[in-house]
Amino acid sequence: MKFTRAYSSSLNGAIPAAKAKYVPVSGTYPIGFTASGILVGVKAGNTTKPDLALVTSDRPCSAAAVFTKNKFQAAPVTFSRKVLESRANAGLRSVIVNSGCANAVTGIGGLEDASEMARTTDQRVGVPDSTIVMSTGVIGQRLPIRKIIDHIPVAYHKAGGSHRHWLDCARAICTTDTFPKLMSRSFALPSSPGIEYRIAGMTKGAGMLAPNMATLLTILATDAPIAPAIMTPLLKHAVDRSFNSITVDGDTSTNDTVALLANGAAGGRELSSPDQSADYEAFQDTLTSFATDLAKYIVRDGEGATKFVTIRVVDAASELSARAIARAIALSPLVKTALYGKDANWGRILCAAGYSLISPPGQPVNDVPEIVPERTNVSFVPTDGSQELKLLVDGEPEEVDEERASEILEAEDLEILVKLGTGDKSTVHYTCDFSHDYVTINGDYRT
Amino acid sequence: MKFTRAYSSSLNGAIPAAKAKYVPVSGTYPIGFTASGILVGVKAGNTTKPDLALVTSDRPCSAAAVFTKNKFQAAPVTFSRKVLESRANAGLRSVIVNSGCANAVTGIGGLEDASEMARTTDQRVGVPDSTIVMSTGVIGQRLPIRKIIDHIPVAYHKAGGSHRHWLDCARAICTTDTFPKLMSRSFALPSSPGIEYRIAGMTKGAGMLAPNMATLLTILATDAPIAPAIMTPLLKHAVDRSFNSITVDGDTSTNDTVALLANGAAGGRELSSPDQSADYEAFQDTLTSFATDLAKYIVRDGEGATKFVTIRVVDAASELSARAIARAIALSPLVKTALYGKDANWGRILCAAGYSLISPPGQPVNDVPEIVPERTNVSFVPTDGSQELKLLVDGEPEEVDEERASEILEAEDLEILVKLGTGDKSTVHYTCDFSHDYVTINGDYRT
Repeated sequence: MKFTRAYSSSLNGAIPAAKAKYVPVSGTYPIGFTASGILVGVKAGNTTKPDLALVTSDRPCSAAAVFTKNKFQAAPVTFSRKVLESRANAGLRSVIVNSGCANAVTGIGGLEDASEMARTTDQRVGVPDSTIVMSTGVIGQRLPIRKIIDHIPVAYHKAGGSHRHWLDCARAICTTDTFPKLMSRSFALPSSPGIEYRIAGMTKGAGMLAPNMATLLTILATDAPIAPAIMTPLLKHAVDRSFNSITVDGDTSTNDTVALLANGAAGGRELSSPDQSADYEAFQDTLTSFATDLAKYIVRDGEGATKFVTIRVVDAASELSARAIARAIALSPLVKTALYGKDANWGRILCAAGYSLISPPGQPVNDVPEIVPERTNVSFVPTDGSQELKLLVDGEPEEVDEERASEILEAEDLEILVKLGTGDKSTVHYTCDFSHDYVTINGDYRT
Repeated sequence: MKFTRAYSSSLNGAIPAAKAKYVPVSGTYPIGFTASGILVGVKAGNTTKPDLALVTSDRPCSAAAVFTKNKFQAAPVTFSRKVLESRANAGLRSVIVNSGCANAVTGIGGLEDASEMARTTDQRVGVPDSTIVMSTGVIGQRLPIRKIIDHIPVAYHKAGGSHRHWLDCARAICTTDTFPKLMSRSFALPSSPGIEYRIAGMTKGAGMLAPNMATLLTILATDAPIAPAIMTPLLKHAVDRSFNSITVDGDTSTNDTVALLANGAAGGRELSSPDQSADYEAFQDTLTSFATDLAKYIVRDGEGATKFVTIRVVDAASELSARAIARAIALSPLVKTALYGKDANWGRILCAAGYSLISPPGQPVNDVPEIVPERTNVSFVPTDGSQELKLLVDGEPEEVDEERASEILEAEDLEILVKLGTGDKSTVHYTCDFSHDYVTINGDYRT
């Protein structure tokens, strides 16, 4: 069994040929922001991969963040939440990130480390309490904090606005990722058609919790002018439909953080209320689709993944039930291994849907009116535009053309379409398959 | 990658050396019951493994069954539930089981097939509406019903009460299992100390839903006299603490069924009410511990499993929360692969506990008072009686002796002990690890 990725080595070697197309060779980055990624050696064995990342703005930003719901919240999560609260989402300047150690379950000392990372960044920028902190890596170990603190000034001085700077930064937040995940895009808002706004973002995370090191981290930065008060609802809406609609293995880490910064450097009228409906909707759509595209990269780089699978659940009684069904299918080890084996095993898909909403053992049986077997339809939808392959029609199994099924399952991309026939709500979820390499990466990590 | 088990071949070859010790060479079986297991060839390729099983009693039985909560219930589940309801748990005689095809998602035709299996058995026994039906195997395919019907008389005539008969029967219900799972035991009830009662049981299931074939099936038979009215609460209590406290991969099948038959052939006072507290408690305890030991065999034979892991959650605020936490740890692919890799990665255990009770994406954050990080303790408890290895003490990570950790993780059996410090409730859950072989078995099945 070949060991295909290991922390601090995966991004040293070449990016896998199949993934190179996802790494941009240029970009359009938001005005007023600079970025850097430098080598600290947070993990003793890391002597080549950048592991300290800084994104900073030359002027105050509105900012918001969505954090993990895990009950064991890492120190940087606790710290950053407080900073945003105390600042009421206004006047933020920087995000400082280390990979290689999650600073999670590290007690009071860990909280002091997170605070010191922020304070040191604040001093460079000259604005107290203006830094968000993120960490990703092993749980339960303290940061080599002196090393990190000593390098923060270097990160600050090296920061710049070029594509290379942003890409270094995106590399520095990676752990078991096989490619850096960076995107940038321009957009306009209806009320200022003459102004070009930009949004850039980077993300990491190959398992929801990766081998010995944790976390999905995302930084989004835009030069559009957005008022602090509406940052959180805008970000939550986008995250629910993007980063909260993907799964690799279903493990929700202690450090997950998605942060959005808006510095208004491009000018124009400030977006300050949902009542500015045209601008609000336009920005909401831009942010949501940008976040969704970025989130898909994580699935593409899922640990050991060989498939990119879209699970679309439609005609559902509620969005929440549609999401629960999609998630159950996405997380089922039997569905995931069947996809890896290119096996049109729709029984497993149905089986996962069938247990998605039932009460747990020890509780009374619930009725689950959201699923009516006789109204359920399941199809494979090829992404090449060719005809869907019906597997189950109104609860009755189809005679499946195995040759056609194999053809569809050969492709890297696949959509599983589930029609429930019990309402008009829908959801989309993105996931990957479950391969031998997943077990290798997560089981043989130390060997 | 060696393909180590495949339906209809795994039980033809030798039982793996490490598992042979779990197969009894003799037994004490309940009076009045006979059993058989014969070859039908439900799967066309199966020419050697028995795949039709019958357990029948020469006198009426009280009976109860616990069925899957999966919303897509297989035909034999729907059928058997109705039989038990119409009979009010009294006067049952037989259980007829086929492996090789689950008769699930097979519409009206499938229901007729299940009914015909029961009717044919009833005719042999001479008592209408007295048969429970179970099936396990591929979902979405119709049974080769004529073949099965034609063989039921043979199964009836071959039935006997010897150890060999019961073992053949236990083999016939297997699918990807690598060994048949059969147990028998004698017990007494306080009110009739002079009477020896017997209980026998068989179970199958290597994934909660195994490759292309579904299901956990269990038949329990006793010659103790138990009134129909109390069969269901007795069985539910036992199942909650046994079959509902194990997981292999977390996929709840469309066919899961645990049935209990009591024919009273050993005589003595009928147990008819929980008010007969000494007898009731004694039988409840016997049944529960018997079912738990039988359930453990399923974990021992988990697809690809190399470890048997007990997860004990104690000092919990409620039993339900303890169960949810144990289950989350047991199902986490990252915990399971770490165990496979013999990696003392307690951060993953903590991480799983930390997300076990949180609200799903799209719902507001809930408080989860059941978990207080500063009160949480995690240890590895070796099963050889040597000292536990503390990993987390009151939320603070311990300096872990990696050598000692490796020593503990080398053993096949391991207990993970989680102390929550928020109450006095507890639970025990049994699970296995996640290996390359699991992916092979479930991913490469058709290749």
